[in-house]
Amino acid sequence: MTKPRIVVVGAGFGGMAVIKALKGAHADVTLIDRTNHHLFQPLLYQVATAALSPADIATATRALLRHHKNVTVIMGEVMGIDAPGGLVKVANAPDLAFDFLVLATGADYSFFGKERWAPNAPVLKTLDDALAIRERLLGAFEWAESHAGERGISQGLTFVVVGGGPTGVELAGTIAELARSTLARDFRHIDPASARIILFEAGPRLLSAFPKQLSDYARTALEKLGVEVRIESPVEEIDSEGLTTTAERISTANVIWCAGTTARPAARWLGAEEAGNRAIKVEGDCGVPGHANIFALGDVASFDAGGGAVLAGLAPVAKQQGAYVGHLLKARIAGRTAPKPFRYRDRGAMAVIGRSRAIADFGWLRLTGFAAWLTWSLVHLMLLVDFRSRLLVYVNWSWAWFTWGRGARLLTRASPDTYGLARRGGRR
Amino acid sequence: MTKPRIVVVGAGFGGMAVIKALKGAHADVTLIDRTNHHLFQPLLYQVATAALSPADIATATRALLRHHKNVTVIMGEVMGIDAPGGLVKVANAPDLAFDFLVLATGADYSFFGKERWAPNAPVLKTLDDALAIRERLLGAFEWAESHAGERGISQGLTFVVVGGGPTGVELAGTIAELARSTLARDFRHIDPASARIILFEAGPRLLSAFPKQLSDYARTALEKLGVEVRIESPVEEIDSEGLTTTAERISTANVIWCAGTTARPAARWLGAEEAGNRAIKVEGDCGVPGHANIFALGDVASFDAGGGAVLAGLAPVAKQQGAYVGHLLKARIAGRTAPKPFRYRDRGAMAVIGRSRAIADFGWLRLTGFAAWLTWSLVHLMLLVDFRSRLLVYVNWSWAWFTWGRGARLLTRASPDTYGLARRGGRR
Repeated sequence: MTKPRIVVVGAGFGGMAVIKALKGAHADVTLIDRTNHHLFQPLLYQVATAALSPADIATATRALLRHHKNVTVIMGEVMGIDAPGGLVKVANAPDLAFDFLVLATGADYSFFGKERWAPNAPVLKTLDDALAIRERLLGAFEWAESHAGERGISQGLTFVVVGGGPTGVELAGTIAELARSTLARDFRHIDPASARIILFEAGPRLLSAFPKQLSDYARTALEKLGVEVRIESPVEEIDSEGLTTTAERISTANVIWCAGTTARPAARWLGAEEAGNRAIKVEGDCGVPGHANIFALGDVASFDAGGGAVLAGLAPVAKQQGAYVGHLLKARIAGRTAPKPFRYRDRGAMAVIGRSRAIADFGWLRLTGFAAWLTWSLVHLMLLVDFRSRLLVYVNWSWAWFTWGRGARLLTRASPDTYGLARRGGRR
Repeated sequence: MTKPRIVVVGAGFGGMAVIKALKGAHADVTLIDRTNHHLFQPLLYQVATAALSPADIATATRALLRHHKNVTVIMGEVMGIDAPGGLVKVANAPDLAFDFLVLATGADYSFFGKERWAPNAPVLKTLDDALAIRERLLGAFEWAESHAGERGISQGLTFVVVGGGPTGVELAGTIAELARSTLARDFRHIDPASARIILFEAGPRLLSAFPKQLSDYARTALEKLGVEVRIESPVEEIDSEGLTTTAERISTANVIWCAGTTARPAARWLGAEEAGNRAIKVEGDCGVPGHANIFALGDVASFDAGGGAVLAGLAPVAKQQGAYVGHLLKARIAGRTAPKPFRYRDRGAMAVIGRSRAIADFGWLRLTGFAAWLTWSLVHLMLLVDFRSRLLVYVNWSWAWFTWGRGARLLTRASPDTYGLARRGGRR
């Protein structure tokens, strides 16, 4: 019997769970991703704020899958799908033939049709994004130190985060700590603690997926760290000089965009029906309607959770769906009956606010403060993909916790001009 | 009494030693550097070969100098010096006034007038250089895996290092290990161990600063690792298709240039007399002739060691000269007599070849093999600038030693095209 060819697109939580479940399956599996690494996205904000190095939270995909002898890993960008021909089109590389296809391409940030904001509002989705934000944050303080007393300093040291979801809250809290603690004693001409950090949220409260009591705690905790929190403040314009909401104008050279995502364009590759966020509307087994051999999961899939709701774009959803689809394919290849439709098991959610506060909602238990932070830390350490990452993150966290320092305060490009500091200077 | 203003240019080994010696001095000290970090250059090749992360060997300069209350750190690029006016000219930032000036700007790679080679022959001097080389090395294997069997694969997997000094030897050895051990089991379509690694040296032997017996050992050790060593092979041409020596033509997409350095242009800033490598010819106290208040040290200084020889561009030379100049300035400020002329204390030299071989020459003792490697490892761990770096490097080395892995196998840019893989593909 010839081995069926399975192609998995995307090496995020969902794609990796598929591969794991397919271990030992009688199949030729190909995993294709645009990058060469599996990234632990929940800690990406710590790379952006100089607490961790990229290698602490990312590992070469083919090293992780060394012992999965039925898997070939390809680094490449998928450009489209020829569903009737069973081909995945790859940019600058040969097409990949498939008998089964799993789409786990994830989501990207969305500016809701205001793409012109993008150059002035970096997002946080890839390692490259995180390093660019790190350069911008650290560069702003360096620029201010050599231009102390000039006009434009307060604009240069105003940091705006748009979007009060978990990433926005985590970033705003960590930037505040960076300015108020880590950097506080390192400058002679400026006071980093005078930096303004403002968090804008369009809706009525932060972390809207959590119970109101936990949202309120998060807001208070952020404000204690020195973050100005503005709710019900939709952004109307972002330009190179700053940002405008319905209520005010903020002069700033540093806006970070954490508001809203859209699925990557896999639905268009297939001509499949899209949900509002462009995700593929999938069936109860994560199958794409009209394509018996194509599945979609994680952020690129819109899964009806009943009662008009769809599953949120969370790591645990992608992981569970990935494991489900992997087992389904294994059963199908072996000629066994398919499993029952997918059901998501909600094990709770957490968000962290700075170095010793967090919120956690396990349904039967709600935690805030240090207990939640300790839980968050331990859970995230255990979720990291391998022993090396766990050890490095643990070492870095311990060092940072005791010294209030940040280990990865690096600007790696050649000259300060590269950071747009000159540009920012010229803007005065 | 007004405090004298001391400006130090360059935060390498030399500049940092000046600052350290000036601790507590009654002076306003300003340290200016193009980057925001002090870099432990001897381990930079390990960042280029994915063994260490940038943050493991680099630390924010202002964090290191937090407790040096008389020091201001400025990130900026020096463009020139107005010696009579006592001003250092900074790009895009205010000038810095000085009463005393210390130039510790270091060296850069030189193509000996063949600057057209630069685009096809990256160098290894900064963190940015190291990351670019890492992307190129890892990208070459990724590209080959998705184009297996096509023409151009052997060109893509041929790695040429030019220059048989310590950096060239360390790089060639580590690239060979990367291909033969770390990556060996991770690919399905190509055999990374089939990659060619060639080291070219124009002179009659590798590591010419060491005794011949140690050079010979290094060559044998490299060849055991699978490196083709070509001595007496000066490079005649480097282009986008490969490299030509007097004896042969090598098709390769990957040339790394480790041959020869030239001082940064500080001599021209002052109109001072230059040595052949453009370094400033300094006096016995590291003073620049004709400028009683200006000093130069490390790679940017040419120091007469007697008998027609000049001190080599080594980290210990820069460190000892930095400490000397710092103490000299401290004495002068305090009105004490100046110290005797500088004398270099040679404490020996080491070079490493792969994961368990090295050579060490302490004059009274010469080591090769595992003993030398263990010595090298311990000495370099201790020389790292802070506890955090030591701990992280130790953790990474231990992990790598036991698993044969490399922790920082990351391509962080968005798509494989960015690595010139498409370009390389188009070159077939």
